[in-house]
Amino acid sequence: MSTRYLVLAEGKSGDPHFGKTARGVMRYAPEKVVALLDSERAGELQDGWPIVGRVDDALRFDPNTALVGVATSGGRFPPAWKELLRTCIQKGLDLENGLHEFLTNDAELVELAQRHNVELRDLRKPPTDLNVPTGENLAVPATIVLTVGSDCAIGKMTVSIELDREARRRGVKSEFVPTGQTGIAIAGWGIAVDAVVSDFIAGAAERLVVEGHRRGGELLFVEGQGALQHPQYSGVTLGLYHGSAPHLLVLCHQAGQAYVNEDERFPIPPLSELVALHERTALIARPAKVACIALNTRDLAEDEALRSIDEAKAETGLPAGDPVRFGADALVKAILAQV
Amino acid sequence: MSTRYLVLAEGKSGDPHFGKTARGVMRYAPEKVVALLDSERAGELQDGWPIVGRVDDALRFDPNTALVGVATSGGRFPPAWKELLRTCIQKGLDLENGLHEFLTNDAELVELAQRHNVELRDLRKPPTDLNVPTGENLAVPATIVLTVGSDCAIGKMTVSIELDREARRRGVKSEFVPTGQTGIAIAGWGIAVDAVVSDFIAGAAERLVVEGHRRGGELLFVEGQGALQHPQYSGVTLGLYHGSAPHLLVLCHQAGQAYVNEDERFPIPPLSELVALHERTALIARPAKVACIALNTRDLAEDEALRSIDEAKAETGLPAGDPVRFGADALVKAILAQV
Repeated sequence: MSTRYLVLAEGKSGDPHFGKTARGVMRYAPEKVVALLDSERAGELQDGWPIVGRVDDALRFDPNTALVGVATSGGRFPPAWKELLRTCIQKGLDLENGLHEFLTNDAELVELAQRHNVELRDLRKPPTDLNVPTGENLAVPATIVLTVGSDCAIGKMTVSIELDREARRRGVKSEFVPTGQTGIAIAGWGIAVDAVVSDFIAGAAERLVVEGHRRGGELLFVEGQGALQHPQYSGVTLGLYHGSAPHLLVLCHQAGQAYVNEDERFPIPPLSELVALHERTALIARPAKVACIALNTRDLAEDEALRSIDEAKAETGLPAGDPVRFGADALVKAILAQV
Repeated sequence: MSTRYLVLAEGKSGDPHFGKTARGVMRYAPEKVVALLDSERAGELQDGWPIVGRVDDALRFDPNTALVGVATSGGRFPPAWKELLRTCIQKGLDLENGLHEFLTNDAELVELAQRHNVELRDLRKPPTDLNVPTGENLAVPATIVLTVGSDCAIGKMTVSIELDREARRRGVKSEFVPTGQTGIAIAGWGIAVDAVVSDFIAGAAERLVVEGHRRGGELLFVEGQGALQHPQYSGVTLGLYHGSAPHLLVLCHQAGQAYVNEDERFPIPPLSELVALHERTALIARPAKVACIALNTRDLAEDEALRSIDEAKAETGLPAGDPVRFGADALVKAILAQV
């Protein structure tokens, strides 16, 4: 049975930043979404979807899953949400949740779900049988492309998805390999590598590329996480890098951004230095090359955006572009040229 | 009450590699150990400690804690051990455990421990309130020295402890900062950073250096983990590196070792390249310098050992030595010269 989401966006549906996971699904898996819930905007539309005020009002759209898609500080459930979650369960909806706090750790919700015969799915909950990598990552007969970047939250997942779609349009057997909750909700599989025990980051990444190939991918676009020079998440980044054993990297950067994490103590090095740093830190047994630069130019006027792309090309000598704004054509060409 | 360990080494007390945690404690915290348990060698001595065959026979040495110090494949309890653990609890001993498998996840042991009013301590169990680093690591008023290396299991913990001891002998307010189960058992505090959720590696490392300073350290020797180019553990290594925000690095290498993880696909780069790689990957806001090279020469004859030290000096232009075999003097001098 395919997923039919009621996106829970109470009080937040109008906020463009309201929930990375919900927004991601609405953008890249719109066929899975049937309605949004936000009592403050009941009766309105959001991007063409009906907004309902109560779970009961959503049932005529025949959802089978409620998506907890609102990012909250520290990843905790807003207490007021608990009642809403209980209602969803009572109405027979599975719950799917991308937050750090797990539904399946809440004894009351677990008991209620059993009673109503619905499933609680925590997208960030890692498999219980992870281990260190075995070396199988180096034997996957596919070209592996990892997005890396100058910071978090600059669109590495988006770039991976856009490149995967463009490659598919060209007839390539391409797979997007999700490594975070939003990618998992979009693609319906994956492991949130930042939620695994740190000993097993690389092992989780290995399992993902093995699975991406098993699903038919000859070209794998692995969703990157964090940044090698991010003061908080660099460990996840390097573990994912080594465990996924990419042949090629796509270096992502938000055009014009000067500091990692908006912190002036962490100036972002020039793109050419970032290219060298990433190539230098590759897995010894799998040298990786930066194939192209993906700029996120959303904050720039079009002429500035085009200029920043030209500058990136000139500085690095690599193809560059903003795949969301101007299409993924040039970047995919650059990648396919190296496959 | 200070810890008085009965080291559980059933069937393994004669094996020099039998248990990293137990061996570490016997070597660096001998004052905490009162006896070993190994029914195959009951009545013998090991490094001066009595070996007993049954828990009852150990009680006259007045232990208060049984140390599960045997490393097992995959970190699981040998099933036959469960009975021994139950006996220890019944005799009123706390249990301390360095394995991946947690005592506190075993409902039967937990219940038994409550009944007998003893404590179960899982050394690798992370604190429940970890988060990402706050930036406090950059404000710790101490000189932070991290051991890094060309591979796992080449003596980074040992080097950190030896340097800490030599610094203390010189009157420096030095602290060893434990990041793994053996270091934790030796020092009585710390966090096993490879066991935390990967999002929080750097946050755990930050907390450790903050705590090291709170304990009076003006010079902190942080126990390194893994290796930046290790195919399995590099994520832990980089997260620990960035989270502990060291000013200085001690590069550890097993003299003569050619491959990471004994895997020919992973040749260890020359030491001079490793120095450059580690300095290049420092936290942007905290450039780190390799202060010296610590060679582990245990597999070499003395003349070969001395020659390998000379070669390391010549290649890197840095002070080098084997602090276990030839004393930590030169390395500590090199560090203090940069404080």
